[in-house]
Amino acid sequence: MERILIKDCLILPMTSEPSGGEEAQEELVISGDVAIEGDTILQVGDQGELPPNWKPTKVIDGKDHLCLPGLVNCHTHAAMTLFRSYADDLPLMYWLEKKIWPVEARLSGEDVYWGTALALIEMIRSGTTTFNDMYFFMDEVAQAVEKIGMRACLARGLIGIGVQGEVALDESKQLIAKWHKQAEGRINIWLGPHAPYTCPPTYLEKVLAVAEEYQVGIHIHLSETEGEIRQIQKQYGKTPVALLRELGAFRYPVVAAHCVHLTDEDIRCLAENGVGVAHNPESNMKLASGIAPVTKLRAAGVAVGIGTDGAASNNNLDMLEETRTAALLQKVATGDPQALPAATALFMATREGARVLGLGDEIGMLKPGYKADLILIDLKQSHWYPKHNLVSQLVYAAQAHDVDTVIINGKVVMENRKITTIDEELVWAQVEERAKRLVEPG
Amino acid sequence: MERILIKDCLILPMTSEPSGGEEAQEELVISGDVAIEGDTILQVGDQGELPPNWKPTKVIDGKDHLCLPGLVNCHTHAAMTLFRSYADDLPLMYWLEKKIWPVEARLSGEDVYWGTALALIEMIRSGTTTFNDMYFFMDEVAQAVEKIGMRACLARGLIGIGVQGEVALDESKQLIAKWHKQAEGRINIWLGPHAPYTCPPTYLEKVLAVAEEYQVGIHIHLSETEGEIRQIQKQYGKTPVALLRELGAFRYPVVAAHCVHLTDEDIRCLAENGVGVAHNPESNMKLASGIAPVTKLRAAGVAVGIGTDGAASNNNLDMLEETRTAALLQKVATGDPQALPAATALFMATREGARVLGLGDEIGMLKPGYKADLILIDLKQSHWYPKHNLVSQLVYAAQAHDVDTVIINGKVVMENRKITTIDEELVWAQVEERAKRLVEPG
Repeated sequence: MERILIKDCLILPMTSEPSGGEEAQEELVISGDVAIEGDTILQVGDQGELPPNWKPTKVIDGKDHLCLPGLVNCHTHAAMTLFRSYADDLPLMYWLEKKIWPVEARLSGEDVYWGTALALIEMIRSGTTTFNDMYFFMDEVAQAVEKIGMRACLARGLIGIGVQGEVALDESKQLIAKWHKQAEGRINIWLGPHAPYTCPPTYLEKVLAVAEEYQVGIHIHLSETEGEIRQIQKQYGKTPVALLRELGAFRYPVVAAHCVHLTDEDIRCLAENGVGVAHNPESNMKLASGIAPVTKLRAAGVAVGIGTDGAASNNNLDMLEETRTAALLQKVATGDPQALPAATALFMATREGARVLGLGDEIGMLKPGYKADLILIDLKQSHWYPKHNLVSQLVYAAQAHDVDTVIINGKVVMENRKITTIDEELVWAQVEERAKRLVEPG
Repeated sequence: MERILIKDCLILPMTSEPSGGEEAQEELVISGDVAIEGDTILQVGDQGELPPNWKPTKVIDGKDHLCLPGLVNCHTHAAMTLFRSYADDLPLMYWLEKKIWPVEARLSGEDVYWGTALALIEMIRSGTTTFNDMYFFMDEVAQAVEKIGMRACLARGLIGIGVQGEVALDESKQLIAKWHKQAEGRINIWLGPHAPYTCPPTYLEKVLAVAEEYQVGIHIHLSETEGEIRQIQKQYGKTPVALLRELGAFRYPVVAAHCVHLTDEDIRCLAENGVGVAHNPESNMKLASGIAPVTKLRAAGVAVGIGTDGAASNNNLDMLEETRTAALLQKVATGDPQALPAATALFMATREGARVLGLGDEIGMLKPGYKADLILIDLKQSHWYPKHNLVSQLVYAAQAHDVDTVIINGKVVMENRKITTIDEELVWAQVEERAKRLVEPG
């Protein structure tokens, strides 16, 4: 069994909840070693005990590095890297109908495998160790996750209009049978009803019956645009949140992506039912959907994680950037520079994100007994000087490239910026060729 | 004389104005070589003519690189890198009075030299070749600019309350005498009255007399917060923009930083008087100042450049990130995903920024006869695949580290990510020690 010792680093274990005050941020950082055995953290700084005569099989020099839990990307469509920057600055429906849907209709399982592989590399390179995905050809997505070594929650996207809805629900069951808790436990399968406006109540009831049967959670787009609110209100006389509650969806773990347009009653309902929210600030800005009421949600007790959404609407999968944008956007939206301080934003990107995905007892903190999902940030760079407050620097000044080493489930998947589990240039070549064919089929 | 040939690159010359349509973006990119002689661009792709028997003294391989004009940072306080992440997530007046002003009061000229040096390195590393600065100990700032090789507009910040106002104005005159058009023409000196609320009309009139005498422009903070608008309205019964116009400030070139809170009449006034605006989206978000009406300003014909503001309120000096944020923020603020498309945002960060600083005939485009200020972006990275649209990728997906080579005024100041004009680690050590002393003087 591999035993890794990361020596002499600064450590941000994320074990204490941020108070929001400025002093609290400095108290979050300790220094020392991190010891890993197999897939599990044994010791962090001076917490946890090493067995007598414990000897590492691998030592990583942590000098001039900051070690913290891997970031948790709570909502994405990984394979959409294939369409990165293919169609930007367009009205939503034109973008979907004229651009995205036609190219998605041409996707093969292999395309999705390679597009997902590119996404996983990009996520690892920017410090993400767990992601929550909704797409199709999910067997191929799971294969990419297994090979490259990430932790993932995967959901086959379900559209409940037409015959495809039943087929996709069957695929979801097969996906659960084949992949739930597989890949050394790194994969969890969820159900992915796309949204209330694409899944009518009769279909959602079928989805919930499957959730009940297999005891899995629901990943859904919810209250993303004003258009959705108007449509659901008109069809059912209630908000999308109220509609889901009445259908009984909140009896299961739910990750609700976006939640941009909520009433106070919606917020209370999400809090009372323990629904987790995935906040996607850059996608919401780029598509002009609006600004989610993150400060209100958190004040009401709702767990809010952060997500990048797909690369077609972002256009990268950089959780450090997304976390910064989340913090900046809440300040300007609320008119309060104290809203969503750095430590809270980082808490959302790690521990609260883990909780949103139902993984709060396994990941999101560096703590003995937790899974060894962690990242090392290279501090020897101009934008990291001087070092008044490492948490602030990480949230407000860092860039993806600062991440130089990533460990997931105790395995080194990137070391000194080299991906260890797949040939990165092969992925580039595959994606380049496939993307070209998808957008220019003739 | 140095003759540099950059071979076989993709080139974004920024010579044509973006139409805003999606096709236009692809038309902006050409491929070929860029030839530089001394401080000037000779040839771009197949435009411009090389003298017979022209031989380069240095060849740079541009394969897998995108070459474009260096970015123009239209508003910053470079030396504030010393206070990066020292005090964040605080109310503005507490931040200024309890945190920033006390540490600034301890600054020496040497501190400012090293803090500025760090800022210049960080700006070069993220693709900026020209910046517009307002601070104090500006002689030391000019020395750092001369040594490290950037292009700069420098203004001694002027507070018109108390005796220091006269002293600072005298320093401004000395700065003009010593540094205007110096350092191979890379330095321009402006006057830096801080803001209408810190410079009463009688003092502003003195500043304008100096502008008249020396024929230099004005760099000022304008209409940044609602508090400023209320105060000026109460004192003078008009908006800050109207106050400046009535004082005759707009007879001179003016860079107005922020311009967050403007009436329609203010916008017309800025347009009619050719006032340039420096938009600082991340600083405005972080300090909860508001969102500048960039779309309206540009529609009215105002030239709007982009700035990072100082590192104490950002907390990096990354113009690629700032340009992305500018684009995303306008979309969500206007509710229109077509607002400020990628090509327009990039235009603001280069050519329009140059125009704001009065340098539109020298820099901001890759064009024969223009100064050789340009950057190379390394495209062999996962977040640059696939390559549907390079302009979109650059604005929405790139990161600072992608910039690997920077040429300013025909001189290579960074090559393959190594700064050539100063010992970067020496700067880190100086900044670390000085920053520590400044915040913990005891």
